[in-house]
Amino acid sequence: MAKEVLYLKIANIIQEQIFSETLKIGDKLPSIRTLQKLHNVSLNTIKQSFLELESKSLIESRPKSGFYISKTSNRKLSIPSMNKLKLSEKQTSSDDLITKVFNSVNDKSITRFSLGVPDPSLLPLAKLNKGVVKAVRNLEESGAGYEPVQGSINLRRNLAKWSFVLEGKLTEDDFVTTSGAINAIYNCLMAVTKRGDTIAIESPAYFGIIQMAQTMGLNIIELPTHPTTGVDLDALKKVIHKISVCCFMSNFSNPLGSLMPDENKEELVKLLTHHDIPLIEDDLYGNLFFGTSRPKPCKYYDEAGIVMWCGSVSKTLAPGYRVGWVAPGKFKEKIIRQKMVQTVSSPSLYQEVIADFLEHGRYDHHLRNFRNTLYTNSLHFQRTIEDHFPENTKISQPQGGSFLWLELDKRIDTALLYDTAIRQKIGFVPGRIFTQHDQYNNCMRLNFALEWKEKVALDLKRLGQLIKNSI
Amino acid sequence: MAKEVLYLKIANIIQEQIFSETLKIGDKLPSIRTLQKLHNVSLNTIKQSFLELESKSLIESRPKSGFYISKTSNRKLSIPSMNKLKLSEKQTSSDDLITKVFNSVNDKSITRFSLGVPDPSLLPLAKLNKGVVKAVRNLEESGAGYEPVQGSINLRRNLAKWSFVLEGKLTEDDFVTTSGAINAIYNCLMAVTKRGDTIAIESPAYFGIIQMAQTMGLNIIELPTHPTTGVDLDALKKVIHKISVCCFMSNFSNPLGSLMPDENKEELVKLLTHHDIPLIEDDLYGNLFFGTSRPKPCKYYDEAGIVMWCGSVSKTLAPGYRVGWVAPGKFKEKIIRQKMVQTVSSPSLYQEVIADFLEHGRYDHHLRNFRNTLYTNSLHFQRTIEDHFPENTKISQPQGGSFLWLELDKRIDTALLYDTAIRQKIGFVPGRIFTQHDQYNNCMRLNFALEWKEKVALDLKRLGQLIKNSI
Repeated sequence: MAKEVLYLKIANIIQEQIFSETLKIGDKLPSIRTLQKLHNVSLNTIKQSFLELESKSLIESRPKSGFYISKTSNRKLSIPSMNKLKLSEKQTSSDDLITKVFNSVNDKSITRFSLGVPDPSLLPLAKLNKGVVKAVRNLEESGAGYEPVQGSINLRRNLAKWSFVLEGKLTEDDFVTTSGAINAIYNCLMAVTKRGDTIAIESPAYFGIIQMAQTMGLNIIELPTHPTTGVDLDALKKVIHKISVCCFMSNFSNPLGSLMPDENKEELVKLLTHHDIPLIEDDLYGNLFFGTSRPKPCKYYDEAGIVMWCGSVSKTLAPGYRVGWVAPGKFKEKIIRQKMVQTVSSPSLYQEVIADFLEHGRYDHHLRNFRNTLYTNSLHFQRTIEDHFPENTKISQPQGGSFLWLELDKRIDTALLYDTAIRQKIGFVPGRIFTQHDQYNNCMRLNFALEWKEKVALDLKRLGQLIKNSI
Repeated sequence: MAKEVLYLKIANIIQEQIFSETLKIGDKLPSIRTLQKLHNVSLNTIKQSFLELESKSLIESRPKSGFYISKTSNRKLSIPSMNKLKLSEKQTSSDDLITKVFNSVNDKSITRFSLGVPDPSLLPLAKLNKGVVKAVRNLEESGAGYEPVQGSINLRRNLAKWSFVLEGKLTEDDFVTTSGAINAIYNCLMAVTKRGDTIAIESPAYFGIIQMAQTMGLNIIELPTHPTTGVDLDALKKVIHKISVCCFMSNFSNPLGSLMPDENKEELVKLLTHHDIPLIEDDLYGNLFFGTSRPKPCKYYDEAGIVMWCGSVSKTLAPGYRVGWVAPGKFKEKIIRQKMVQTVSSPSLYQEVIADFLEHGRYDHHLRNFRNTLYTNSLHFQRTIEDHFPENTKISQPQGGSFLWLELDKRIDTALLYDTAIRQKIGFVPGRIFTQHDQYNNCMRLNFALEWKEKVALDLKRLGQLIKNSI
């Protein structure tokens, strides 16, 4: 048999197994060497088979892990649309809706597509507990004393070492630890704004930043944001003279899952540097990439020190630990001052646990597993939604993170749908929460950082049915 | 021998032992029953002897503990003077001085009369560590999940039960937990003020509240404060129409150690209620009383919900835990909102440790010992200062807390003295830090929450000598 035919034959066998769902989305393929022995052919033949399947987007490689079944190119559903700049539209609060959604997130009888944090089953809780017991023994004065305002030196040192993506540009002295990334952002905003200033954010944007800016008396400009490539820089340029500060999630934004291309990040930093506008970069999903490597943050392009790079372990490891940090560039002294007047210092214990996790590679190990789970889940979710939601559903195509953003038929009001769904013990977040304007009423955010099991699949299908029933 | 003569004879023996320093200040006397057996007399005779010694202020009783050697009535030094209202004087920052003092507080080679927290040797660290290990085992999801914004229900319940001084007026629902008392105060100020508002504080006042108010852009009015009875209500009445909020330490203020009499507290709350001015009551020293019972907070008299009662374990048990709370009265929803936008939630672990400490009486047990140590220390300090500082030194007479306030000869500049003292490894806090005006330059705060030992006594004497040398 000719070599060309041979590799195609093997590719067809695998393709058949995928179409018959013998091999399911997210499954790992046998290694090249295993298949070589199985089919008694050369390594190159198997490699050609894989290339063929890859070209059809049926499989994809993940670094240091192997090849996995994917089907992302065969999407039946289109991606959500991008909204226009709404400078004159009146701003309204969605506080009541936020309160309603929040009140249900601690109810464990609900399938919580609404949550913004990973399901505990996906976290290495036993290892974390061991870390706590170890840290208690090692802490000076048992952690009962104050640590320096800037935060645990051990954590800051490990953060600097571990921030490979910054290529050694940061040292322990460049970090300030905070009570989660949200507290880092709060400190940044307190440090560089005053009541009446204007902040530019993505749209849709994480509701926490909207509530925070409103509470501080800031004006908010929501910039059009592309579901794939993130904030629209042309729109930003149009309003740049009104803006005191920007707060963006450049990598896998919440809720869209968008990823700014490197050239956009570079252009953004240049633009803001030129206008001397600080950028608060909320990069707490940056390590949850589905691709081959961690995307760069805007901080990478920051030469003037205008980028305040915020991170945490809240979306990856331990939300309740409230361990976050910021590399605040030229605003460091202001951030330390803010932290001092607000709370003097942070508790050391959990910072030491995280430092130890970083130092001994346990965090990276966990992240590798967690990313694989998230990616596989995202495929399961997309496939289930394709099969069980209305055909005019639009769905984001995140390349990382843990959220899907759905745009439904115009006639659907997801705030109303929420009440129906929650009665059936299914939670999601209505789109209206992610904006200060009267929009995204037919949108919803789904969290896929859950354990993918029968019950979850079933509830996702039931949610699709509820939507169909509402049209 | 006649009974009258008998009791006097025994009293004289003890008096002789005190004057010869066989019995030292702070020493505990043998029990009445022990002395009865020793002298082979009736219980009543010993009781009469003790009454005689008490009438001379040579000894004093402490509830449930016995009789101790005191000599507080024989004070050679007078109490510090009270300053006048300084409305027109210009405000200047003492940030550089604060930074200088703070930079030395982590240097353990220094005798830190400068610290605002108890020496670790006075804390039950082993018991706390046990509590941490227990809490790690019991926490839901190992504490990795978010807890409700309002804070640990377990801690709030135990705080409500334990707040006997409020006579059952507070429930678990009335508390919000925070990152230390300073964070409680910060949340309160953020909730009820905006830039340009005016806050009334004591003078001298804890420098943290001055820095906080300055950072927030508030105007500060420093009210004359009596070293014994606290803030001057007549002065407050004169400026009440300018004021948006008050922040006072009603019990054992920092740095004066003053204690507002109950009638002043009641009058204050009535006055502020009438003008609808919120009172932030920083009551974190209230449990460190030297008298017979815990003094009431202003919150006790609060019927309109205008008092935000703040507390923590930072000055009594574990500064680094950053566990604090506030009972914010009618401002509760605003405080919860502030906490939500700033950090979403607190870490649970240490809150559970403290809740457990409260529930099983370990906190009360510790407080009893700690109060005895502090009181004895305060007598040691006062005596040493009387004997080794210049005769024109004025010294506060705290009835609780852990600070002494000294007013020195007018020619002494304690900011300069600080540099000299720190070179000799002796730390204190210069008075200038506790005000926004150019005053208290000849004052200092001394922390006596240290282990009273040879080295500490010697360094206190050396500090006295340095002062003598500076005149």
